[in-house]
Amino acid sequence: MTALTETRRTSADDSLRARAAAVIPGGMYGHMSVHQLPMAAGHPHFTAGYPQFYERGAGARIWDVDGNEYIDFMCAYGPMIAGYANPEIDSAVAAVQRRGDVLTGPMPELVDYAEALVDLIPSADWAMFAKNGTDATSMAVVVARAATGRSRLLKARASYHGSNAWFTPGAAGITAADRADIRYFEYNDLASLEAAIAAADGDVAGIILTPYQHDGYVDQELVDVAFARGVRAAADRIGAALILDEVRTGFRLDITGAWESIGVRPDLTAYSKAIGNGYSIAALVGRDSLRQAASEIFVTGSFWMGGVGFAAGLATLAHLRAVDGVARMTAAGQAFRDGLAQQAAASGYAISQSGPVTMPLVRFVDDPDFALGIAFSNAALNLGVLLHPWHNMFVSAAHSATDIAEALDRTDRAFRELRDPR
Amino acid sequence: MTALTETRRTSADDSLRARAAAVIPGGMYGHMSVHQLPMAAGHPHFTAGYPQFYERGAGARIWDVDGNEYIDFMCAYGPMIAGYANPEIDSAVAAVQRRGDVLTGPMPELVDYAEALVDLIPSADWAMFAKNGTDATSMAVVVARAATGRSRLLKARASYHGSNAWFTPGAAGITAADRADIRYFEYNDLASLEAAIAAADGDVAGIILTPYQHDGYVDQELVDVAFARGVRAAADRIGAALILDEVRTGFRLDITGAWESIGVRPDLTAYSKAIGNGYSIAALVGRDSLRQAASEIFVTGSFWMGGVGFAAGLATLAHLRAVDGVARMTAAGQAFRDGLAQQAAASGYAISQSGPVTMPLVRFVDDPDFALGIAFSNAALNLGVLLHPWHNMFVSAAHSATDIAEALDRTDRAFRELRDPR
Repeated sequence: MTALTETRRTSADDSLRARAAAVIPGGMYGHMSVHQLPMAAGHPHFTAGYPQFYERGAGARIWDVDGNEYIDFMCAYGPMIAGYANPEIDSAVAAVQRRGDVLTGPMPELVDYAEALVDLIPSADWAMFAKNGTDATSMAVVVARAATGRSRLLKARASYHGSNAWFTPGAAGITAADRADIRYFEYNDLASLEAAIAAADGDVAGIILTPYQHDGYVDQELVDVAFARGVRAAADRIGAALILDEVRTGFRLDITGAWESIGVRPDLTAYSKAIGNGYSIAALVGRDSLRQAASEIFVTGSFWMGGVGFAAGLATLAHLRAVDGVARMTAAGQAFRDGLAQQAAASGYAISQSGPVTMPLVRFVDDPDFALGIAFSNAALNLGVLLHPWHNMFVSAAHSATDIAEALDRTDRAFRELRDPR
Repeated sequence: MTALTETRRTSADDSLRARAAAVIPGGMYGHMSVHQLPMAAGHPHFTAGYPQFYERGAGARIWDVDGNEYIDFMCAYGPMIAGYANPEIDSAVAAVQRRGDVLTGPMPELVDYAEALVDLIPSADWAMFAKNGTDATSMAVVVARAATGRSRLLKARASYHGSNAWFTPGAAGITAADRADIRYFEYNDLASLEAAIAAADGDVAGIILTPYQHDGYVDQELVDVAFARGVRAAADRIGAALILDEVRTGFRLDITGAWESIGVRPDLTAYSKAIGNGYSIAALVGRDSLRQAASEIFVTGSFWMGGVGFAAGLATLAHLRAVDGVARMTAAGQAFRDGLAQQAAASGYAISQSGPVTMPLVRFVDDPDFALGIAFSNAALNLGVLLHPWHNMFVSAAHSATDIAEALDRTDRAFRELRDPR
């Protein structure tokens, strides 16, 4: 058994970290903040922690700036769904890029992609596009307010819907006015939703929520069907828009809509991350009843109508249809989950694997400070598997049976190292 | 003299418009809304109006979906600064794109670009990146609030700083709370700034403004030097951050900062549009005094750390330095302005050309409904020159002397047609 020590090269990463610390506040911000990297120095076994900088990606693999290779279960925090450097998608995009991207008016691909989404998604009668998931969720709120003439928004307390002033989990720089029109409920708790409606005095423009609960640090929770139907009924009863935030889940659960299988259709759905396989694009789709309101709001961005994002969206959609992406991801995710469960049991660890198998979160039971999770993740990292101890992970259609088998060989060794460190 | 009638093909555009109207609210939103196209049907001479959709761009030229070619003075509303399909920039970007873009962590190019901006811009000690100009102006506001612990923001009444709920010029879907912490002053009017400070009871986190007044529909107004210095002094006196919104002006006035020549340095500067020659990127740069606050806020986006935007930023900066982009744009813009002035006078029209020559706005005097401006712009459009009658235009470093001479030949004909229609 190899000891729990790092064998990875880290010098190039160390050098870039020092340079970044000088010119980037805190060394890096947001979801790629250095503080969000699982563990840093100070651990008895893993002093380097996760690499901060990456050189390239191909398929389900990424290489850090020191040339260390990983089978990647973060998929760029979601955007990669059909493989890094997917040749079909990249060549379709390059063909458009040679003609242009951001021009003085939109390229025809914008219309092609809007038609494709309207054809694909039963709850979509129209589409608008942007560059960030936050743009899409924010546009949804403004459309809901324009349609209803009301102000208040109901959201599940801990759910992430973006990082603008309404939604950021951060406190710094956020004012009371930023949150004045938001009321909170608990996910999967209809009584709390009704209490929030009452607290809003009927002035509810919209209810925003994710297709299932994928908050960090806690087990993921699938939606309760009665809850989803209850939210739909409540929105209809009070005349509010039901906004489904599929930014994280989009195309990883059901490409026609995450709640299609349970028969609950939103009024507005926000997409981003995976829909362009990493190319920057976000979409808001909605029902006819909100089309007029959507045409009245003023939202825009310099790059929002660029053709490259739509080319990427069209090619990603074609690829996922051609390979039956959700089925492929589901098979890969199930194999990974089954393997981890068997390995954990064999090593005597109790783990909790929650959420859809295409978006797994793996926690060690009785591990409140994530010490075990961090040690296991770092052990796996050193063996070439990139996991995350407290954020949901992502499986892609490029994770082949070979990738999963190889990843499981390495996680097996990581569990055994964790059990018997030298 | 040719008659004032359209000779352009429009059938492909007509077809796309009809398709867009079915799947995009209002047919198109934002700055590329069909309602923002100069004129639509109903004019005695120009029933088709401006094309909505474009097929490709190269250098200073764009082609609409019907194959009509234009010398483009809108430059994609600013993002194009070094020519559409610039071969150096596109090949530098493609080399990075082959390695990846959005990965599970940033690529080294993020650090390279942050260092480049900090080296270039005297008021920049650090940088953060995003995907929309609105992201950068919004981040600036949050940083200012985090640094000061205050809420209120002062802005020039008519100035555009993005399309989120704080800033959008739209009214639909915007609530009282969205604007509760904003106080207004008049650009170039220090007394109105002092009145706004007084109205804010000293609770001022930041003052945001553009380097010069480039509001639509009215003549542009260069900054009064005493006003710029007065804003700086007022910000220092009350301990508020001075935020310069260079989203539209960035790299078209002075690549080291629009107010460097007048010796006024902002605390925070927002960039986007042209800094990546059309590739999606935005930047917020700031002074050391705000570094800690910037490290405390939580802002992020799925694509914000993607390497392609930084590769584009680095290549665009290198190109603009290599060709002395501002000098080249200034020469082209001055030649165009001089030519238009001569032509207007020769044709007996009084026109007003305002703002920097690299960002011209051309109005006909005594043309309150823009009827003359629209007719002239449409006449020029039919002759292959894309102008705008009420929005500032943009000159790029790809506008060669030949492009300007050819454009002026055509505008001369447009003035004469306007004067003597058959």
